[in-house]
Amino acid sequence: MLRNGGGHTAGPTTSSSSSYAARGEACFQRMDKCNAEVLALLYGATVRQLLVDFEGDFDKVNKELYRMGTDIGARLVDEFLIKSRAPPCQDFRDACEVMSKVALKMYLGVTGDCVDWDNSTEGRKCRLVLPVNPLNDFVELPMELRRPASTTAAAGGTDHPGPILYYSNILCGVIAGAMEQLRINVAVQFESDVLLGDEISVISLELLEIITDDIHEDSDSDAE
Amino acid sequence: MLRNGGGHTAGPTTSSSSSYAARGEACFQRMDKCNAEVLALLYGATVRQLLVDFEGDFDKVNKELYRMGTDIGARLVDEFLIKSRAPPCQDFRDACEVMSKVALKMYLGVTGDCVDWDNSTEGRKCRLVLPVNPLNDFVELPMELRRPASTTAAAGGTDHPGPILYYSNILCGVIAGAMEQLRINVAVQFESDVLLGDEISVISLELLEIITDDIHEDSDSDAE
Repeated sequence: MLRNGGGHTAGPTTSSSSSYAARGEACFQRMDKCNAEVLALLYGATVRQLLVDFEGDFDKVNKELYRMGTDIGARLVDEFLIKSRAPPCQDFRDACEVMSKVALKMYLGVTGDCVDWDNSTEGRKCRLVLPVNPLNDFVELPMELRRPASTTAAAGGTDHPGPILYYSNILCGVIAGAMEQLRINVAVQFESDVLLGDEISVISLELLEIITDDIHEDSDSDAE
Repeated sequence: MLRNGGGHTAGPTTSSSSSYAARGEACFQRMDKCNAEVLALLYGATVRQLLVDFEGDFDKVNKELYRMGTDIGARLVDEFLIKSRAPPCQDFRDACEVMSKVALKMYLGVTGDCVDWDNSTEGRKCRLVLPVNPLNDFVELPMELRRPASTTAAAGGTDHPGPILYYSNILCGVIAGAMEQLRINVAVQFESDVLLGDEISVISLELLEIITDDIHEDSDSDAE
Protein backbone atom coordinates (compact mmCIF):
# COMPACT_ATOMS: atom_id res chain seq x y z
CA MET A 1 0.00 0.00 0.00
CA LEU A 2 2.90 2.36 0.71
CA ARG A 3 3.80 4.22 -2.44
CA ASN A 4 7.36 4.07 -3.57
CA GLY A 5 9.48 7.17 -3.56
CA GLY A 6 9.52 10.08 -1.19
CA GLY A 7 12.46 8.69 0.75
CA HIS A 8 10.37 6.81 3.32
CA THR A 9 11.37 3.45 4.63
CA ALA A 10 8.47 1.39 5.73
CA GLY A 11 10.54 -1.46 7.09
CA PRO A 12 9.28 -5.02 7.24
CA THR A 13 5.72 -5.58 8.41
CA THR A 14 5.84 -6.75 11.98
CA SER A 15 3.58 -9.48 13.27
CA SER A 16 1.89 -7.03 15.63
CA SER A 17 1.34 -4.66 12.71
CA SER A 18 -0.38 -7.34 10.64
CA SER A 19 -2.44 -8.53 13.60
CA TYR A 20 -3.49 -4.92 14.21
CA ALA A 21 -4.48 -4.68 10.54
CA ALA A 22 -6.65 -7.77 10.91
CA ARG A 23 -8.22 -6.34 14.05
CA GLY A 24 -8.88 -3.05 12.26
CA GLU A 25 -10.58 -4.84 9.40
CA ALA A 26 -12.75 -6.89 11.78
CA CYS A 27 -13.73 -3.78 13.74
CA PHE A 28 -14.57 -1.85 10.58
CA GLN A 29 -16.92 -4.62 9.47
CA ARG A 30 -18.82 -4.42 12.75
CA MET A 31 -19.40 -0.65 12.69
CA ASP A 32 -22.45 1.21 11.35
CA LYS A 33 -21.44 2.71 8.07
CA CYS A 34 -22.28 5.51 5.72
CA ASN A 35 -21.00 6.44 2.33
CA ALA A 36 -17.49 7.86 2.28
CA GLU A 37 -18.46 10.42 -0.38
CA VAL A 38 -21.03 11.96 1.93
CA LEU A 39 -18.32 12.39 4.55
CA ALA A 40 -15.99 13.93 1.95
CA LEU A 41 -18.65 16.35 0.70
CA LEU A 42 -19.74 17.32 4.19
CA TYR A 43 -16.13 17.89 5.18
CA GLY A 44 -15.61 19.99 2.06
CA ALA A 45 -18.62 22.12 2.96
CA THR A 46 -17.20 22.58 6.46
CA VAL A 47 -13.80 23.70 5.19
CA ARG A 48 -15.47 26.11 2.76
CA GLN A 49 -17.53 27.53 5.62
CA LEU A 50 -14.38 28.07 7.70
CA LEU A 51 -12.62 29.74 4.77
CA VAL A 52 -15.53 32.18 4.60
CA ASP A 53 -15.63 32.68 8.39
CA PHE A 54 -11.91 33.35 8.64
CA GLU A 55 -11.77 35.33 5.39
CA GLY A 56 -9.32 32.96 3.76
CA ASP A 57 -6.77 33.05 6.61
CA PHE A 58 -5.29 29.57 6.18
CA ASP A 59 -3.53 29.54 9.54
CA LYS A 60 -6.79 30.22 11.34
CA VAL A 61 -8.63 27.62 9.27
CA ASN A 62 -5.90 25.04 9.99
CA LYS A 63 -6.18 25.81 13.70
CA GLU A 64 -9.95 25.63 13.74
CA LEU A 65 -9.95 22.32 11.87
CA TYR A 66 -7.42 21.02 14.38
CA ARG A 67 -9.58 22.19 17.27
CA MET A 68 -12.68 20.54 15.82
CA GLY A 69 -10.62 17.39 15.41
CA THR A 70 -9.45 17.30 19.02
CA ASP A 71 -13.08 17.38 20.18
CA ILE A 72 -13.92 14.50 17.87
CA GLY A 73 -10.83 12.50 18.87
CA ALA A 74 -11.53 12.92 22.56
CA ARG A 75 -15.09 11.79 21.94
CA LEU A 76 -14.16 8.75 19.87
CA VAL A 77 -11.41 7.30 22.00
CA ASP A 78 -13.43 5.83 24.87
CA GLU A 79 -15.71 4.09 22.47
CA PHE A 80 -12.73 2.98 20.42
CA LEU A 81 -11.18 1.26 23.42
CA ILE A 82 -14.39 -0.62 24.09
CA LYS A 83 -15.22 -1.56 20.51
CA SER A 84 -11.70 -2.35 19.29
CA ARG A 85 -10.96 -4.53 22.31
CA ALA A 86 -7.35 -3.53 21.70
CA PRO A 87 -4.94 -4.62 24.45
CA PRO A 88 -3.20 -1.81 26.37
CA CYS A 89 -0.43 -0.21 24.34
CA GLN A 90 3.11 -0.99 25.43
CA ASP A 91 4.69 2.27 24.33
CA PHE A 92 4.31 5.20 21.96
CA ARG A 93 5.28 3.10 18.97
CA ASP A 94 2.62 0.57 19.83
CA ALA A 95 0.05 3.36 20.27
CA CYS A 96 0.93 4.68 16.81
CA GLU A 97 0.51 1.22 15.32
CA VAL A 98 -2.92 0.85 16.90
CA MET A 99 -3.90 4.34 15.71
CA SER A 100 -2.76 3.79 12.12
CA LYS A 101 -3.85 0.19 11.68
CA VAL A 102 -6.94 -0.20 13.88
CA ALA A 103 -8.42 3.25 14.58
CA LEU A 104 -7.98 4.78 11.12
CA LYS A 105 -9.43 1.64 9.56
CA MET A 106 -12.31 1.51 12.02
CA TYR A 107 -13.37 5.11 11.50
CA LEU A 108 -12.23 6.10 8.02
CA GLY A 109 -11.96 2.72 6.34
CA VAL A 110 -8.29 3.23 5.46
CA THR A 111 -4.95 2.43 7.09
CA GLY A 112 -1.76 4.41 7.39
CA ASP A 113 1.86 3.37 7.80
CA CYS A 114 4.05 4.65 10.63
CA VAL A 115 7.53 4.91 9.17
CA ASP A 116 10.85 6.71 9.63
CA TRP A 117 11.09 6.08 13.38
CA ASP A 118 13.73 8.40 14.74
CA ASN A 119 16.08 6.24 16.76
CA SER A 120 18.12 9.24 17.86
CA THR A 121 15.15 10.32 20.01
CA GLU A 122 14.46 6.80 21.29
CA GLY A 123 11.51 6.45 18.96
CA ARG A 124 9.65 9.60 19.92
CA LYS A 125 9.18 10.75 16.33
CA CYS A 126 7.76 9.11 13.25
CA ARG A 127 5.87 9.86 10.08
CA LEU A 128 2.38 8.61 9.33
CA VAL A 129 2.03 8.00 5.60
CA LEU A 130 -1.55 8.08 4.34
CA PRO A 131 -1.74 6.24 1.01
CA VAL A 132 -5.47 7.07 0.80
CA ASN A 133 -7.32 9.94 2.44
CA PRO A 134 -11.08 9.74 1.91
CA LEU A 135 -11.49 13.39 2.95
CA ASN A 136 -9.64 14.36 -0.23
CA ASP A 137 -12.23 12.83 -2.54
CA PHE A 138 -13.53 15.34 -5.11
CA VAL A 139 -11.11 17.98 -3.78
CA GLU A 140 -8.77 20.02 -5.91
CA LEU A 141 -7.02 22.99 -4.38
CA PRO A 142 -6.28 26.05 -6.51
CA MET A 143 -2.97 25.87 -8.37
CA GLU A 144 -1.50 28.80 -6.44
CA LEU A 145 -1.62 26.72 -3.26
CA ARG A 146 0.43 23.92 -4.77
CA ARG A 147 4.07 23.55 -4.06
CA PRO A 148 6.44 23.23 -6.98
CA ALA A 149 8.01 19.76 -7.05
CA SER A 150 11.44 21.02 -5.98
CA THR A 151 10.11 22.40 -2.71
CA THR A 152 7.95 19.48 -1.57
CA ALA A 153 8.44 18.51 2.01
CA ALA A 154 9.40 15.02 0.92
CA ALA A 155 12.39 16.57 -0.84
CA GLY A 156 13.28 18.52 2.26
CA GLY A 157 12.26 21.86 0.80
CA THR A 158 10.57 24.49 2.96
CA ASP A 159 10.65 27.51 0.71
CA HIS A 160 6.99 27.60 -0.29
CA PRO A 161 6.28 31.33 -0.38
CA GLY A 162 2.69 31.56 0.82
CA PRO A 163 0.63 30.38 3.74
CA ILE A 164 -0.54 26.79 3.45
CA LEU A 165 -4.00 25.31 3.83
CA TYR A 166 -3.76 21.84 5.28
CA TYR A 167 -7.14 20.77 4.01
CA SER A 168 -7.40 17.60 6.13
CA ASN A 169 -5.92 19.17 9.26
CA ILE A 170 -8.89 17.87 11.24
CA LEU A 171 -7.15 14.47 11.13
CA CYS A 172 -4.18 15.86 13.07
CA GLY A 173 -6.61 17.18 15.65
CA VAL A 174 -8.43 13.85 15.90
CA ILE A 175 -5.16 11.97 16.47
CA ALA A 176 -3.89 14.51 19.01
CA GLY A 177 -7.26 14.68 20.80
CA ALA A 178 -7.58 10.91 21.08
CA MET A 179 -4.00 10.47 22.31
CA GLU A 180 -4.36 13.36 24.76
CA GLN A 181 -7.40 11.62 26.22
CA LEU A 182 -5.08 8.66 26.83
CA ARG A 183 -2.67 11.13 28.48
CA ILE A 184 -0.20 10.91 25.64
CA ASN A 185 0.68 14.43 24.52
CA VAL A 186 1.70 14.43 20.89
CA ALA A 187 2.58 17.16 18.40
CA VAL A 188 0.79 16.24 15.18
CA GLN A 189 1.06 18.14 11.93
CA PHE A 190 0.86 17.72 8.20
CA GLU A 191 4.23 17.56 6.57
CA SER A 192 3.06 17.05 3.01
CA ASP A 193 -0.25 16.60 1.23
CA VAL A 194 -1.03 15.30 -2.24
CA LEU A 195 -3.57 18.12 -2.55
CA LEU A 196 -0.66 20.57 -2.40
CA GLY A 197 1.15 18.75 -5.18
CA ASP A 198 3.29 16.64 -2.84
CA GLU A 199 3.97 13.08 -3.85
CA ILE A 200 2.48 11.57 -0.73
CA SER A 201 0.45 12.72 2.24
CA VAL A 202 2.47 12.56 5.44
CA ILE A 203 1.63 13.55 9.00
CA SER A 204 4.48 13.90 11.46
CA LEU A 205 4.04 12.68 15.01
CA GLU A 206 6.24 13.63 17.94
CA LEU A 207 5.76 12.37 21.46
CA LEU A 208 5.95 15.26 23.90
CA GLU A 209 4.98 13.62 27.17
CA ILE A 210 3.26 10.59 28.60
CA ILE A 211 1.45 11.71 31.72
CA THR A 212 1.49 9.11 34.44
CA ASP A 213 -0.31 9.66 37.71
CA ASP A 214 1.05 7.70 40.57
CA ILE A 215 -2.25 7.28 42.37
CA HIS A 216 -0.64 5.37 45.24
CA GLU A 217 1.65 8.28 45.97
CA ASP A 218 -1.35 10.60 46.17
CA SER A 219 -3.17 8.18 48.47
CA ASP A 220 -0.11 7.88 50.67
CA SER A 221 0.23 11.63 50.99
CA ASP A 222 -3.48 11.90 51.82
CA ALA A 223 -3.05 9.31 54.55
CA GLU A 224 -0.15 11.09 56.15
CA MET B 1 -39.48 -0.06 9.98
CA LEU B 2 -42.18 2.60 10.28
CA ARG B 3 -42.86 3.29 13.90
CA ASN B 4 -46.46 3.09 15.01
CA GLY B 5 -48.27 6.19 16.09
CA GLY B 6 -48.10 9.71 14.77
CA GLY B 7 -51.11 9.28 12.54
CA HIS B 8 -49.15 8.21 9.48
CA THR B 9 -50.40 5.60 7.11
CA ALA B 10 -47.67 3.80 5.27
CA GLY B 11 -49.93 1.77 3.04
CA PRO B 12 -48.92 -1.61 1.72
CA THR B 13 -45.40 -1.98 0.38
CA THR B 14 -45.59 -1.82 -3.37
CA SER B 15 -43.55 -4.09 -5.56
CA SER B 16 -41.60 -1.11 -6.92
CA SER B 17 -40.91 0.03 -3.36
CA SER B 18 -39.47 -3.34 -2.37
CA SER B 19 -37.46 -3.59 -5.59
CA TYR B 20 -36.09 -0.09 -4.90
CA ALA B 21 -35.16 -1.22 -1.39
CA ALA B 22 -33.24 -4.18 -2.86
CA ARG B 23 -31.51 -1.87 -5.31
CA GLY B 24 -30.61 0.54 -2.50
CA GLU B 25 -29.12 -2.28 -0.45
CA ALA B 26 -27.09 -3.56 -3.43
CA CYS B 27 -25.80 -0.05 -4.22
CA PHE B 28 -24.87 0.58 -0.59
CA GLN B 29 -22.79 -2.59 -0.53
CA ARG B 30 -20.81 -1.42 -3.55
CA MET B 31 -19.92 2.04 -2.22
CA ASP B 32 -16.76 3.07 -0.37
CA LYS B 33 -17.69 3.41 3.26
CA CYS B 34 -16.64 5.13 6.40
CA ASN B 35 -17.88 4.93 9.92
CA ALA B 36 -21.26 6.53 10.53
CA GLU B 37 -20.11 7.91 13.89
CA VAL B 38 -17.41 9.95 12.23
CA LEU B 39 -20.03 11.48 9.96
CA ALA B 40 -22.26 12.20 12.96
CA LEU B 41 -19.43 13.81 14.93
CA LEU B 42 -18.21 15.85 11.99
CA TYR B 43 -21.75 17.01 11.31
CA GLY B 44 -22.15 17.93 14.97
CA ALA B 45 -18.96 19.99 14.84
CA THR B 46 -20.28 21.76 11.73
CA VAL B 47 -23.61 22.63 13.37
CA ARG B 48 -21.79 23.90 16.46
CA GLN B 49 -19.57 26.05 14.24
CA LEU B 50 -22.63 27.54 12.53
CA LEU B 51 -24.30 28.22 15.89
CA VAL B 52 -21.20 30.21 16.86
CA ASP B 53 -21.00 31.99 13.48
CA PHE B 54 -24.65 33.01 13.52
CA GLU B 55 -24.68 33.73 17.25
CA GLY B 56 -27.34 31.15 17.99
CA ASP B 57 -29.82 32.44 15.39
CA PHE B 58 -31.59 29.16 14.61
CA ASP B 59 -33.30 30.45 11.48
CA LYS B 60 -29.97 31.45 9.98
CA VAL B 61 -28.38 28.14 10.98
CA ASN B 62 -31.29 26.20 9.45
CA LYS B 63 -30.91 28.19 6.22
CA GLU B 64 -27.15 27.72 6.07
CA LEU B 65 -27.45 23.98 6.67
CA TYR B 66 -30.05 23.85 3.91
CA ARG B 67 -27.76 25.78 1.55
CA MET B 68 -24.82 23.47 2.31
CA GLY B 69 -27.15 20.55 1.62
CA THR B 70 -28.26 21.84 -1.79
CA ASP B 71 -24.61 22.01 -2.91
CA ILE B 72 -24.04 18.44 -1.75
CA GLY B 73 -27.28 17.17 -3.33
CA ALA B 74 -26.47 18.80 -6.67
CA ARG B 75 -23.03 17.23 -6.53
CA LEU B 76 -24.24 13.75 -5.63
CA VAL B 77 -27.07 13.35 -8.10
CA ASP B 78 -25.12 12.79 -11.33
CA GLU B 79 -23.03 10.15 -9.71
CA PHE B 80 -26.13 8.66 -8.12
CA LEU B 81 -27.78 8.22 -11.51
CA ILE B 82 -24.71 6.41 -12.83
CA LYS B 83 -24.03 4.25 -9.81
CA SER B 84 -27.61 3.38 -8.88
CA ARG B 85 -28.51 2.45 -12.46
CA ALA B 86 -32.03 3.47 -11.49
CA PRO B 87 -34.47 3.62 -14.41
CA PRO B 88 -35.93 7.06 -15.21
CA CYS B 89 -38.60 8.06 -12.71
CA GLN B 90 -42.17 8.00 -13.97
CA ASP B 91 -43.50 10.79 -11.79
CA PHE B 92 -42.92 12.68 -8.54
CA ARG B 93 -44.12 9.76 -6.45
CA ASP B 94 -41.65 7.48 -8.19
CA ALA B 95 -38.85 10.02 -7.66
CA CYS B 96 -39.67 10.13 -3.94
CA GLU B 97 -39.55 6.34 -3.75
CA VAL B 98 -36.14 6.27 -5.42
CA MET B 99 -34.90 9.03 -3.11
CA SER B 100 -36.14 7.37 0.07
CA LYS B 101 -35.34 3.76 -0.76
CA VAL B 102 -32.25 3.91 -3.00
CA ALA B 103 -30.49 7.26 -2.49
CA LEU B 104 -30.87 7.50 1.29
CA LYS B 105 -29.70 3.92 1.64
CA MET B 106 -26.82 4.42 -0.75
CA TYR B 107 -25.46 7.52 0.96
CA LEU B 108 -26.57 7.32 4.59
CA GLY B 109 -27.14 3.59 4.99
CA VAL B 110 -30.79 4.07 6.05
CA THR B 111 -34.13 4.15 4.30
CA GLY B 112 -37.15 6.37 4.74
CA ASP B 113 -40.83 5.84 4.06
CA CYS B 114 -42.87 8.20 1.88
CA VAL B 115 -46.34 8.23 3.39
CA ASP B 116 -49.50 10.33 3.63
CA TRP B 117 -49.71 11.08 -0.07
CA ASP B 118 -52.15 13.95 -0.51
CA ASN B 119 -54.65 12.83 -3.13
CA SER B 120 -56.40 16.19 -3.08
CA THR B 121 -53.32 17.69 -4.77
CA GLU B 122 -52.93 14.78 -7.20
CA GLY B 123 -50.06 13.39 -5.21
CA ARG B 124 -47.92 16.51 -5.03
CA LYS B 125 -47.39 16.29 -1.25
CA CYS B 126 -46.17 13.57 1.04
CA ARG B 127 -44.26 13.02 4.24
CA LEU B 128 -40.91 11.30 4.45
CA VAL B 129 -40.66 9.41 7.72
CA LEU B 130 -37.10 8.74 8.90
CA PRO B 131 -37.10 5.86 11.38
CA VAL B 132 -33.34 6.25 11.82
CA ASN B 133 -31.24 9.34 11.24
CA PRO B 134 -27.51 8.68 11.61
CA LEU B 135 -26.79 12.42 11.90
CA ASN B 136 -28.61 12.35 15.25
CA ASP B 137 -26.18 9.90 16.83
CA PHE B 138 -24.72 11.24 20.08
CA VAL B 139 -26.88 14.38 19.82
CA GLU B 140 -29.08 15.71 22.55
CA LEU B 141 -30.57 19.17 22.17
CA PRO B 142 -31.08 21.34 25.27
CA MET B 143 -34.43 20.79 26.99
CA GLU B 144 -35.63 24.32 26.20
CA LEU B 145 -35.63 23.48 22.51
CA ARG B 146 -37.90 20.51 22.96
CA ARG B 147 -41.54 20.72 22.21
CA PRO B 148 -43.98 19.59 24.88
CA ALA B 149 -45.81 16.45 23.80
CA SER B 150 -49.13 18.27 23.28
CA THR B 151 -47.66 20.56 20.65
CA THR B 152 -45.73 18.06 18.56
CA ALA B 153 -46.24 18.49 14.86
CA ALA B 154 -47.47 14.93 14.68
CA ALA B 155 -50.40 15.97 16.88
CA GLY B 156 -51.03 19.00 14.70
CA GLY B 157 -49.76 21.50 17.23
CA THR B 158 -47.86 24.55 16.11
CA ASP B 159 -47.72 26.61 19.27
CA HIS B 160 -44.11 26.03 20.20
CA PRO B 161 -43.10 29.41 21.56
CA GLY B 162 -39.48 29.75 20.47
CA PRO B 163 -37.44 29.51 17.29
CA ILE B 164 -36.58 25.98 16.27
CA LEU B 165 -33.25 24.44 15.34
CA TYR B 166 -33.74 21.74 12.76
CA TYR B 167 -30.49 20.03 13.54
CA SER B 168 -30.47 17.79 10.45
CA ASN B 169 -31.76 20.46 8.07
CA ILE B 170 -28.89 19.70 5.73
CA LEU B 171 -30.89 16.62 4.67
CA CYS B 172 -33.71 18.84 3.37
CA GLY B 173 -31.15 20.78 1.37
CA VAL B 174 -29.61 17.60 -0.04
CA ILE B 175 -33.01 16.31 -1.20
CA ALA B 176 -34.02 19.67 -2.67
CA GLY B 177 -30.62 20.18 -4.33
CA ALA B 178 -30.60 16.73 -5.91
CA MET B 179 -34.19 17.03 -7.17
CA GLU B 180 -33.56 20.56 -8.47
CA GLN B 181 -30.66 19.20 -10.49
CA LEU B 182 -33.20 16.85 -12.07
CA ARG B 183 -35.38 19.92 -12.71
CA ILE B 184 -37.90 18.92 -10.09
CA ASN B 185 -38.51 21.88 -7.79
CA VAL B 186 -39.58 20.72 -4.38
CA ALA B 187 -40.27 22.46 -1.08
CA VAL B 188 -38.61 20.34 1.58
CA GLN B 189 -38.76 21.00 5.30
CA PHE B 190 -38.64 19.29 8.65
CA GLU B 191 -42.04 18.85 10.17
CA SER B 192 -40.96 17.03 13.32
CA ASP B 193 -37.74 15.72 14.78
CA VAL B 194 -37.14 13.23 17.59
CA LEU B 195 -34.37 15.55 18.82
CA LEU B 196 -37.07 18.14 19.58
CA GLY B 197 -39.06 15.62 21.57
CA ASP B 198 -41.32 14.65 18.68
CA GLU B 199 -42.34 11.04 18.40
CA ILE B 200 -40.91 10.57 14.92
CA SER B 201 -38.74 12.51 12.49
CA VAL B 202 -40.72 13.64 9.49
CA ILE B 203 -39.74 15.74 6.48
CA SER B 204 -42.54 17.16 4.34
CA LEU B 205 -42.13 17.23 0.57
CA GLU B 206 -44.21 19.31 -1.81
CA LEU B 207 -43.78 19.31 -5.56
CA LEU B 208 -43.71 22.89 -6.83
CA GLU B 209 -42.82 22.43 -10.49
CA ILE B 210 -41.33 19.96 -12.92
CA ILE B 211 -39.39 21.95 -15.50
CA THR B 212 -39.64 20.49 -18.97
CA ASP B 213 -37.86 22.05 -21.92
CA ASP B 214 -39.49 21.39 -25.21
CA ILE B 215 -36.32 21.53 -27.26
CA HIS B 216 -38.17 20.89 -30.55
CA GLU B 217 -40.34 23.94 -30.04
CA ASP B 218 -37.25 26.10 -29.53
CA SER B 219 -35.65 24.64 -32.65
CA ASP B 220 -38.81 25.34 -34.64
CA SER B 221 -38.91 28.95 -33.55
CA ASP B 222 -35.22 29.35 -34.40
CA ALA B 223 -35.89 28.00 -37.88
CA GLU B 224 -38.72 30.40 -38.54
